[in-house]
Amino acid sequence: VLGASLACAYGTTVVACKDVTFMAKTVTAEEELKRANDMRSRMELMIMEAQAEFCKALELEEDGGKKFNVDKWKRAEGGGGVTCVLQDGKVFEKAGVNISVVTGNLPPAAVAQMRSRGKNLREGVELPFFAAGISAVIHPRNPYVPTIHFNYRYFEVKDGEKVDWWFGGGTDLTPYYLDEEDAVHFHGTLKAACDRHDTSYYKKFKKWCDKYFHIPHRGESRGIGGIFFDDLDTPGQEEAFKFVTDCANSVIPSYIPIVKKHKNKMYTDNERQWQLLRRGRYVEFNLIYDRGTKFGLHTPGARFESILMSLPLNARWEYMNVPYERSREGKLTEILKNPKDWV
Amino acid sequence: VLGASLACAYGTTVVACKDVTFMAKTVTAEEELKRANDMRSRMELMIMEAQAEFCKALELEEDGGKKFNVDKWKRAEGGGGVTCVLQDGKVFEKAGVNISVVTGNLPPAAVAQMRSRGKNLREGVELPFFAAGISAVIHPRNPYVPTIHFNYRYFEVKDGEKVDWWFGGGTDLTPYYLDEEDAVHFHGTLKAACDRHDTSYYKKFKKWCDKYFHIPHRGESRGIGGIFFDDLDTPGQEEAFKFVTDCANSVIPSYIPIVKKHKNKMYTDNERQWQLLRRGRYVEFNLIYDRGTKFGLHTPGARFESILMSLPLNARWEYMNVPYERSREGKLTEILKNPKDWV
Repeated sequence: VLGASLACAYGTTVVACKDVTFMAKTVTAEEELKRANDMRSRMELMIMEAQAEFCKALELEEDGGKKFNVDKWKRAEGGGGVTCVLQDGKVFEKAGVNISVVTGNLPPAAVAQMRSRGKNLREGVELPFFAAGISAVIHPRNPYVPTIHFNYRYFEVKDGEKVDWWFGGGTDLTPYYLDEEDAVHFHGTLKAACDRHDTSYYKKFKKWCDKYFHIPHRGESRGIGGIFFDDLDTPGQEEAFKFVTDCANSVIPSYIPIVKKHKNKMYTDNERQWQLLRRGRYVEFNLIYDRGTKFGLHTPGARFESILMSLPLNARWEYMNVPYERSREGKLTEILKNPKDWV
Repeated sequence: VLGASLACAYGTTVVACKDVTFMAKTVTAEEELKRANDMRSRMELMIMEAQAEFCKALELEEDGGKKFNVDKWKRAEGGGGVTCVLQDGKVFEKAGVNISVVTGNLPPAAVAQMRSRGKNLREGVELPFFAAGISAVIHPRNPYVPTIHFNYRYFEVKDGEKVDWWFGGGTDLTPYYLDEEDAVHFHGTLKAACDRHDTSYYKKFKKWCDKYFHIPHRGESRGIGGIFFDDLDTPGQEEAFKFVTDCANSVIPSYIPIVKKHKNKMYTDNERQWQLLRRGRYVEFNLIYDRGTKFGLHTPGARFESILMSLPLNARWEYMNVPYERSREGKLTEILKNPKDWV
């Protein structure tokens, strides 16, 4: 059903969809998006739809009846975004789903960072760029429901006449208590999406995810992983876009069944305290290591509220909290120290 | 009284004090410290005493009767420390007072960082170093009692036959509700300590503090400042040590009267929530910008629990929380955006 309603808008021919209502007006004028058929426009429509579909799927689970708050914002340097946040709900303690479509000039330091990743760009100059992406972090209230994060983005950098483009993104899960069935379902859904495009993707992107969401000072992962990739420009733009679209469409089927399964479970205050401690680790990763957060906060004029919406409503730090090895908390910690293959 | 009991241990002749009980055994064997009369030994004794005095002063205010938990730890590469934490007390939600005395080799990247600050050190080589310091962050439970942080340290780097040394440190206050009288008392006590050594210090180090504890992405300070300095190697080693000692001795008179004044005040849940939000900003500063935290976490083999003890027990992040301008929360925010001169 989801696939069907989305297909009309970001197929090869762009037709604005009647049956998908976006959370706000598009960043680029809708007439322009309808007229154009380039990757920038198609990506913008895709992320607007993915945002709307995901927010609506979450609202259906939010039994308190709370709805997303929608902020449409502009960026002085060019472009803007739509930030949707549902805060202090019954099921979702804090849920943020953000899209942004921005243009501007990359400072030489950012260009240098891309060169170090292998991009063939001129050194020491500002280069014009375009970026469109969707990013979401959902922190449920019940400690039995995991936190999910995903992010899919399209990037263009112009160097003289040449335009470099690539896609990046990923989806990953952070449980507080491990349900192996959930882990298999989540990874299985992502693997199926990968396999539809390239059977080598899942293995590679799962490993990349484990490596990326690692907290070196604690020697543990942020969660049980998922997929992560960057600089994807093969086999071609059309194929890469289709893959990223498929990944974005897989978020709902990978996550919503897990929410439904656990959201009404009873839990104790001890379990809640453990969840808050783990949320502290989430904050550590995001503020110290996450490239997106760092890049964002160090960009002058960035909308920091849309970057920091990823932080949990509440978090906790206890000195020297080491769970008993054989407890459920200890077993989760063991998995985080030694990432497992789930499918 | 404090000055008297401390003086015996770190005067020019080192005599271990009978009337000061350290929180744990010294890092360096006590006989060795007694024998030697070099700056390393005197600094170690000074920080051990400052730790004990401060922990005992806090325990006297902790009406719940909770005591500091003391961990003595060793570092594989050389040296060790003593970490004292009082967690979940009635008055102090989380209080950490850490000393460390460490030796080892600075990696070339750390040497490069020091060169960029003007140190005349050889490039691209590992250099042996010694560091001894005390660091504390106290997060009280009552929103009317401010958080205090201080850190005083002595550093040596050996490059061939030459030994470079310097002192660094500072003390700063982070209130949740502003009491102007407190601000004047706090800054006044620090200014008095500075003035006893150099009448140009306070103005310079107050400004440095405002600049250092700045959160660029929010355009606000972490708190109402205090003093901060680094690379202090003038007018001489003896004088610089006396100044740093005086600063360390000023922590108790600058802070304990403020604790006494507010610790039994009634407060509402709204005030508690505001405190938790501000603690989120504290976490942002420490994890994103603080040089000590970053340096610590990126040092292999660092004891991360002693670094992260600075984080509050609980913190909170709300999307787009902007207090009403004329509220007490709004007035504090205004001061944090425009640091004031208090004395």
